[in-house]
Amino acid sequence: MNYCLIRYANELTNIMKRCYCIIGTGALGGYYGALLCRAGFDTHFLIRSDYNQVNTTGLTIKSPKGDFAIPKINSWCSIHEMPQGDVILITVKAYSNPQIRDALSPIIHGKSILVLMQNGLFCEDQFAGLVPDEQIFGALSFICVSKQGPGLINHQDYGSVKIGVYNHSGRMAEATPPLQQLIDDFVSAGIDASTVPDLLQARWEKLVWNIPFSGLSVVLNADTQRIVADPYSLRLAEAIIADVIAAAGACGKPIDSTFGQKMIDNTFKMVPYMPSIKLDFDRGKPMETEAIFGNPLRAAQKAGYEARYIESLYRILKFMEKRQDN
Amino acid sequence: MNYCLIRYANELTNIMKRCYCIIGTGALGGYYGALLCRAGFDTHFLIRSDYNQVNTTGLTIKSPKGDFAIPKINSWCSIHEMPQGDVILITVKAYSNPQIRDALSPIIHGKSILVLMQNGLFCEDQFAGLVPDEQIFGALSFICVSKQGPGLINHQDYGSVKIGVYNHSGRMAEATPPLQQLIDDFVSAGIDASTVPDLLQARWEKLVWNIPFSGLSVVLNADTQRIVADPYSLRLAEAIIADVIAAAGACGKPIDSTFGQKMIDNTFKMVPYMPSIKLDFDRGKPMETEAIFGNPLRAAQKAGYEARYIESLYRILKFMEKRQDN
Repeated sequence: MNYCLIRYANELTNIMKRCYCIIGTGALGGYYGALLCRAGFDTHFLIRSDYNQVNTTGLTIKSPKGDFAIPKINSWCSIHEMPQGDVILITVKAYSNPQIRDALSPIIHGKSILVLMQNGLFCEDQFAGLVPDEQIFGALSFICVSKQGPGLINHQDYGSVKIGVYNHSGRMAEATPPLQQLIDDFVSAGIDASTVPDLLQARWEKLVWNIPFSGLSVVLNADTQRIVADPYSLRLAEAIIADVIAAAGACGKPIDSTFGQKMIDNTFKMVPYMPSIKLDFDRGKPMETEAIFGNPLRAAQKAGYEARYIESLYRILKFMEKRQDN
Repeated sequence: MNYCLIRYANELTNIMKRCYCIIGTGALGGYYGALLCRAGFDTHFLIRSDYNQVNTTGLTIKSPKGDFAIPKINSWCSIHEMPQGDVILITVKAYSNPQIRDALSPIIHGKSILVLMQNGLFCEDQFAGLVPDEQIFGALSFICVSKQGPGLINHQDYGSVKIGVYNHSGRMAEATPPLQQLIDDFVSAGIDASTVPDLLQARWEKLVWNIPFSGLSVVLNADTQRIVADPYSLRLAEAIIADVIAAAGACGKPIDSTFGQKMIDNTFKMVPYMPSIKLDFDRGKPMETEAIFGNPLRAAQKAGYEARYIESLYRILKFMEKRQDN
């Protein structure tokens, strides 16, 4: 099937399929957005840094599941020019949330849902009030993916997505029909998507990997393989994992210690991976230090647990980040 | 008084003054050795890396207390050629102790005393058995000094020395006549020297500064001024200090928390200083990671205290140090 036919077929399908606004076309937004686009969803991409180039060349995905390209995408360089979306998928880094939030209103209609595909804790809180709470969802992606250049996304490993309902009270929330529809859309696009009953619990669980490995990748200037290969950094990663699990427990989200060991085992088996926070740091960009380290640290402290390994990482990263600004 | 006269006067005085063997002519050995030499002690320097140059040019001390030079010193490139010393002053870094210990016997006579001017814990243990315990002393220098080049020592600030009797049991030990004579020698050389009643307590107290500032200087690639100027690293330094004080307390060496605050206050007032461990790291040399971080960490763990800030530093430094070896 040639490109014109694909486009024609897509346009026909779009009449029925929902409109996705992908806010941020980095590694995550580019990868999942391209999959949704390929599946025929009316997909619109906000592109900030590489607009001119990606507008011309589209998106190319390198993936062990098969390379593919979307030569022409609906690309936009500012939010207020975008069409209203049925699903607003936020894939920018969490530190951009305040700025994104302020610009989002024009593309939200009465039934739009917001999906925050971001790491760390409490990013959903930053969007509270923009749509009703039950229309905000948190998505966790378990994926090794990086942007290699404008529109060029390198998918290395994994790729599943877990999505849960945001609940301002932090309590568990039932899966809703909009959430089920979202999952169905993702699955129809070939994404291994599933719901989580407790978003905050799922976010803490993801931090069990993210805090040690994202943090140490920057502090030690090392990929995941080097971190687990050295006995000193491996032991430190294990200690940080135990700290995150203890912090989660103090915050009412108990995680079994075997889960921590599983994260270590998985990392041994994983392809050597440089977490995106480290790529951002090396490029002189901000890091998601508050979302991934600061918010969990403060939540634990508030719950009476002194998370000293997390605190050490957090303060070292803040120092490194601030130095970069100078 | 010209150089020949000084030398003649020194030689006369040496008939009565004791013989010092300075084992290691880095910043510490060069500085204190030059002061002892200037005061007329029969001072002999072991010089490893810069023997040829220092043998020719001697030692030059830049100091706010007055610059001075010793154009010709007794320099030796191997221990077994040195004369027997009344005082063997060990000023190499602690990681060289096993190698130094094995070579030391020929220069020890029946009344030689060993003085370990080193940082960290338990370095004296490595010399136990070489001379009777009561002839081993630990010296703590409170000084900002660095080696700028062969034989060129830059003294920036401070300079006092505290010396205590080594006691294999770790208990307090009375000052002995040899210790008093050592103090008298140092004082006569213009060094602000005094005894400490409890060497292990004094070593822990020194670690209250050394662990946070030596450790963070390497991890953060920053001098003392930058560490205290940034609120995140300052707070981390404070947390590490509290950890060291708690570790010392668990090991039976209680330190008041006001002492920790004093260390912070002093660091604010100090000239910007790059600790020697950081200079060593930048030159690709080993660091005193075990003496300064590993031994206190393990002592605390053995005493039932989990020193998590110290552990974080220790494991990061071990990783950084090992990477350097590759």
